[in-house]
Amino acid sequence: VSTRRVITLTTDFGLRDPYVAQMKAVLLSMAPDAEIVDVTHEVEPQDVIEGAFVLETTWRYFPAGSVHVAVVDPGVGTSRRRLILQKEGHTFVGPDNGLLSCALPDSRRQQRRDGDSYEAGMVTDITAFCIDRLDLLPRPPSATFEGRDVFAPIAALLAARAEPADFGPATQEAFAVQRFRAPVDGAALRGVCVRVDRFGNLITDIRGEDVAPESAVSLGRRRLPLARTYGEADGLCAVIGSTGYVEVALANGNAAADLGAGKGSAVVCEARR
Amino acid sequence: VSTRRVITLTTDFGLRDPYVAQMKAVLLSMAPDAEIVDVTHEVEPQDVIEGAFVLETTWRYFPAGSVHVAVVDPGVGTSRRRLILQKEGHTFVGPDNGLLSCALPDSRRQQRRDGDSYEAGMVTDITAFCIDRLDLLPRPPSATFEGRDVFAPIAALLAARAEPADFGPATQEAFAVQRFRAPVDGAALRGVCVRVDRFGNLITDIRGEDVAPESAVSLGRRRLPLARTYGEADGLCAVIGSTGYVEVALANGNAAADLGAGKGSAVVCEARR
Amino acid sequence: VSTRRVITLTTDFGLRDPYVAQMKAVLLSMAPDAEIVDVTHEVEPQDVIEGAFVLETTWRYFPAGSVHVAVVDPGVGTSRRRLILQKEGHTFVGPDNGLLSCALPDSRRQQRRDGDSYEAGMVTDITAFCIDRLDLLPRPPSATFEGRDVFAPIAALLAARAEPADFGPATQEAFAVQRFRAPVDGAALRGVCVRVDRFGNLITDIRGEDVAPESAVSLGRRRLPLARTYGEADGLCAVIGSTGYVEVALANGNAAADLGAGKGSAVVCEARR
Repeated sequence: VSTRRVITLTTDFGLRDPYVAQMKAVLLSMAPDAEIVDVTHEVEPQDVIEGAFVLETTWRYFPAGSVHVAVVDPGVGTSRRRLILQKEGHTFVGPDNGLLSCALPDSRRQQRRDGDSYEAGMVTDITAFCIDRLDLLPRPPSATFEGRDVFAPIAALLAARAEPADFGPATQEAFAVQRFRAPVDGAALRGVCVRVDRFGNLITDIRGEDVAPESAVSLGRRRLPLARTYGEADGLCAVIGSTGYVEVALANGNAAADLGAGKGSAVVCEARR
Repeated sequence: VSTRRVITLTTDFGLRDPYVAQMKAVLLSMAPDAEIVDVTHEVEPQDVIEGAFVLETTWRYFPAGSVHVAVVDPGVGTSRRRLILQKEGHTFVGPDNGLLSCALPDSRRQQRRDGDSYEAGMVTDITAFCIDRLDLLPRPPSATFEGRDVFAPIAALLAARAEPADFGPATQEAFAVQRFRAPVDGAALRGVCVRVDRFGNLITDIRGEDVAPESAVSLGRRRLPLARTYGEADGLCAVIGSTGYVEVALANGNAAADLGAGKGSAVVCEARR
Repeated sequence: VSTRRVITLTTDFGLRDPYVAQMKAVLLSMAPDAEIVDVTHEVEPQDVIEGAFVLETTWRYFPAGSVHVAVVDPGVGTSRRRLILQKEGHTFVGPDNGLLSCALPDSRRQQRRDGDSYEAGMVTDITAFCIDRLDLLPRPPSATFEGRDVFAPIAALLAARAEPADFGPATQEAFAVQRFRAPVDGAALRGVCVRVDRFGNLITDIRGEDVAPESAVSLGRRRLPLARTYGEADGLCAVIGSTGYVEVALANGNAAADLGAGKGSAVVCEARR
């Protein structure tokens, strides 16, 4: 049995700059046997909601024992808190701004959004640990790059079996975004596109299990029946994608470009389960 | 001696989305000691030919025992088959659409293309294994992401010394593209640009060993003598590049932009060996 | 204690082409336990100065014993030399064109630039080793890709504890760029933007420790007070960034786009320490 711990990174740093490499350098200096995996570094700059969505759809595929570091952090250097969370054997490290929402119990998060978009709000009755013990860091942190100077070293120590409580007091509050799940509107679901992937697929917040089998989805004036897979469709279609959300796709093409749609576009599912 | 097995990934998924990370998560869950290396994830979306070319020019540099997973898969979810191939101690996993052509014996592939472009066709008298035993997967696959749900777990099991025959019946047929080698036209070679690299170098399918020593290549109205290396040339030149194919390059510049040329542009070598 | 050696890669190869993968394939074939980390592959093509700056700001975060391979190499195939350098337990491998400047003693490099931009010049009284023993390579190198054919195999051997002197004679000369440190102009510092990061932050060569506490910086007609962190500012600000250099940033925006500024833009610090 391998004893390597997986440490994942989810950031908006991109790969052009050496920021990610500096985080990995710190991780490997303190946890030389860690296996570091990039989830993505191409979250839209400072888009906490998108980062939360990406992490939510990915963390469960990693082995138990993984440490997930997420840094989309417009509030770096301000008084926003830093958190350690644990769920089902996984550990999460990052700023307290909603980015780590997937690590909170579903029962504590707002079950569906009220308005047209997602935003972070305070939830209570949860268990988290604050990162306050900056004296435990190998060097004093800079004011602008806590990913490298705080979150990476803490993650390395957690991967080496430190306990969350070592780094600060427990707290029962944290910021969280609503669950990514389109709200009900009569017999329909009022979805929204939460991201566009490389293929131009429009990924919505409509959960596959919420959709009636013979339903169709509408985007603008287009009404699209649900197909089982991209290859079945001729042209535009809607499918339940690989992460369980309804996607609008164009076989061998780019649906977002074709439809002039994107993040925030309304997508309605006409018949809910 | 290390016992780590290398698993390589060649896809058109890009790095912006978490799809590659989900594949790595599955690989590390099942083969925790594997060393995963990205060949590229920037194959043009659904361009099987380009994926086949990239894999062909790269796999031999990896150590024997490596498992190569390739997923450029416009037919995902349809009845296209999934294959395991073996060659010179390397194992290849992916869809049966020509992407894994390099793993087939050269003698079975069409030796040179007939027309102006490459395409996949059926070849026979080869040995491959179908991936049919989806009951061996850790969870039922989604209809749209077999890279994560089928190919990654199979690759992890193969890296852990499972046998190809464990996953389905042998087959003697597979799709393959022609060998990447410009056809003869009298004393000349009728080449084509198969990809453009980051530097704007136009990489052709003209093999260096097919070219007469004092030959030149023509692209549009330009006639370019063969140089030994970029640094020797002043301006546009043709060189035998690092993968053995003739490239058209512009010293300290971008040949593709300068010439208005790209994938599919004709490049003629005037004197063949 | 882990015995894995870290090998870092800094290149201008991008991630679209398989060149980086070919280097990793060679590294893992010869040093199967190495841990390979990408610093960046998105250095502007053939921009040796930018590569030198990126490596300089990053190498110290890696553990001692790391081998740093850097390839931004417009002179590949010409008579430019190849070097191995050592500093504080780290080893550096790459072309002799200034890219490895950070591995030379600060005392030997020109302390501040004279003109408006950086360039490589010969420095003396240093200790380096030339890579001449190409007979030690596993196969004869191509004329156009020494990253894969020379630097990667040499790095793998160095990671496996070969000595720099094994590969060629010592030399006391190397190319180096000036230290990245804005020159003095009376009471001011005459800085320049050396790179723009993903967030549009303009990173200058003005060292934080050279700046008087209550100073401001000017870029074009804008005069910006120094803030402690991005979050403190409302709009445009200057901060001492995470690598110790003054940066011009726009809170929740892109300073480079907003100001129409970029690499080479003049940034003046009005009061030096």
